[in-house]
Amino acid sequence: MTNETILFTPGPLSISRTTKNVMMKDWGSRDAEFIDLTRDISLKLEKIAGVDQELPTHHCILIQGSGTFIIEATIDTLIPKDSKVLVLVNGAYGKRMAKICHIHGLSYVTLETGEDTPPTESQIAEFLEEDQNIKYVLAVHCETTSGILNPIYDIANAVSNAGRYLIIDAMSSFGAIPLDVKEIKCAAIVASSNKCLEGAPGVGFAIIDKAILLKAEKNASSLSLDLFDQWHNFKNSGQWRFTPPTHVLAALGQALNEHVMEGGVKGRGARYKSNCDILIKGMESIGFKTYLDSKLQAPIIVTFLLPKVRGFIFSDFYSRLLKKGFMIYPGKITKVDSFRIGCIGHIHQIDLENLIEAVDQIINELGIALK
Amino acid sequence: MTNETILFTPGPLSISRTTKNVMMKDWGSRDAEFIDLTRDISLKLEKIAGVDQELPTHHCILIQGSGTFIIEATIDTLIPKDSKVLVLVNGAYGKRMAKICHIHGLSYVTLETGEDTPPTESQIAEFLEEDQNIKYVLAVHCETTSGILNPIYDIANAVSNAGRYLIIDAMSSFGAIPLDVKEIKCAAIVASSNKCLEGAPGVGFAIIDKAILLKAEKNASSLSLDLFDQWHNFKNSGQWRFTPPTHVLAALGQALNEHVMEGGVKGRGARYKSNCDILIKGMESIGFKTYLDSKLQAPIIVTFLLPKVRGFIFSDFYSRLLKKGFMIYPGKITKVDSFRIGCIGHIHQIDLENLIEAVDQIINELGIALK
Repeated sequence: MTNETILFTPGPLSISRTTKNVMMKDWGSRDAEFIDLTRDISLKLEKIAGVDQELPTHHCILIQGSGTFIIEATIDTLIPKDSKVLVLVNGAYGKRMAKICHIHGLSYVTLETGEDTPPTESQIAEFLEEDQNIKYVLAVHCETTSGILNPIYDIANAVSNAGRYLIIDAMSSFGAIPLDVKEIKCAAIVASSNKCLEGAPGVGFAIIDKAILLKAEKNASSLSLDLFDQWHNFKNSGQWRFTPPTHVLAALGQALNEHVMEGGVKGRGARYKSNCDILIKGMESIGFKTYLDSKLQAPIIVTFLLPKVRGFIFSDFYSRLLKKGFMIYPGKITKVDSFRIGCIGHIHQIDLENLIEAVDQIINELGIALK
Repeated sequence: MTNETILFTPGPLSISRTTKNVMMKDWGSRDAEFIDLTRDISLKLEKIAGVDQELPTHHCILIQGSGTFIIEATIDTLIPKDSKVLVLVNGAYGKRMAKICHIHGLSYVTLETGEDTPPTESQIAEFLEEDQNIKYVLAVHCETTSGILNPIYDIANAVSNAGRYLIIDAMSSFGAIPLDVKEIKCAAIVASSNKCLEGAPGVGFAIIDKAILLKAEKNASSLSLDLFDQWHNFKNSGQWRFTPPTHVLAALGQALNEHVMEGGVKGRGARYKSNCDILIKGMESIGFKTYLDSKLQAPIIVTFLLPKVRGFIFSDFYSRLLKKGFMIYPGKITKVDSFRIGCIGHIHQIDLENLIEAVDQIINELGIALK
């Protein structure tokens, strides 16, 4: 792998040189300048989520760690231990939320649909109607297992109409696919620095409904993952409770500036959509087939069916692409035989075109006919 | 704060330009090269802890987050929920471990000594003799609240002689003060990337006794902080369970190379000792007084008593130093009125001399006589 390797993965992904450049400075985490940086990042994230800056309904709470840390922190902090939970599952990340509920001793049920099938509003409404004990619903916005975009407006409607609370895992959609708390009633939107925001990995955040947060004191079963305590400290001193990854935070600050410069969610989403279109069209022209129906495809990551032809060995295909400077996801997590190529990160039309050309060359080198 | 600001803090601290430079590359976290990097870092950390590479008695397990995350992960993963714990407390970090025990519902007691007083071997031996229910002892090696070096050999002797298990918070000592598992019998040594190893913050690790680790399956009450599960995954695939902070890991890899180049623990410790001596001698020559007796002082961070003279206002002193490019810790955590200056990180004789000169100038500007 050279310095020029471009990542076509669901994250960690390629980030801009200007974003990485700000990591060349050391910050004192308890100094006023870093306190300002933290506040600025939180406000920008709230803005992306559509939080009214004059009368905020939600608070952004940053926390150290990966996406799973912040998902677990949100579940552990917000959901009372005697509440029943419904987890919507159509891939690995839905399953992971169910696993977190299990580990925390929460009573939960799942509504499982196929990896290529989103749940419908009426399915969820019926489920909630039948089980009045359910208080919280957990949903994944874009399930990167397959790349499917779940119908978050429909899900939120069903949950809100039934008077329950919704927590959204928006890890791989936040910043590129609209999610506005003024339109989507939710207890929390959870995401991280390293997906569509194009920051470095190491920080997550939850944008949490104020009223629900205020009821969450001493609910968490962990010190590190207690988002109430984390928020309380930010509110009182502006400081992180425990050493933050200062360089990663600085990168997130710069990444958010670049997000604004690109035109926010709209601009970022448009580039990813264009990347996705080039990717699918190009791969199809070579003879690959997508797993998902195009109506269900999020412009984040695309699952291609593994060609069933002699001579196509995925690990070899992966290595050959890597030698040419293109890194795709090295494996699959769907149940079907497939592989995935991401279209998010600091990658543009030319990068996708070069990738398609490299794939075409490799298929030719291998002497395989896919069509 | 300019790019040239030098940090004299207990972390985040100044790290070398060459260490920061490696953060200019994006890594795919599931690619073979990153798997190699992770393994290499773990082996190097085990080596620093004196683990026999042929017949390893301990395993290094990396985890995302700050020092507190890895401390909590170690306590939550290793200590059976029905075990009683003794926490040795002479500062904020001992207290924090007690708080973690409390949150996790562990039965615990504390042996509290003054912030300037280390516990003795006989005190601990008596305590353990009197309470046979105690199974685990938690100790802080260097308590940065005051900068005191706790007598870890004595502590380990008392614990081991009584047949109990010791977990060492070596956050601010690991890599600069010797800690060898061949000489110190311990269940775990816990530290992070950003103190004496001079990496960027965002990653912690525990070096855990193999036999104890093997008994810890399903003991943790968290998914993210489950070190058994984390280790199991590293063992099986070499991969992180959840997205690692790739840039921070790359920096840690480089920081460990530079640690070796400096002569390992011995070389790093010698520079810090020299830094500490210059700092104390210089500050004393201006008229400041240290809080700790010199025999108890670790060469990590020094607590100075707040001068009780009219005209010395700490926040003003801090700002003036910052304007000159020197950032010290902005506040105190000891019970006595004091402030702290760190002597760890990528700082050298000349930096300490410049700091002392700046302090001297400020005291003169303020027209204060400290002597």
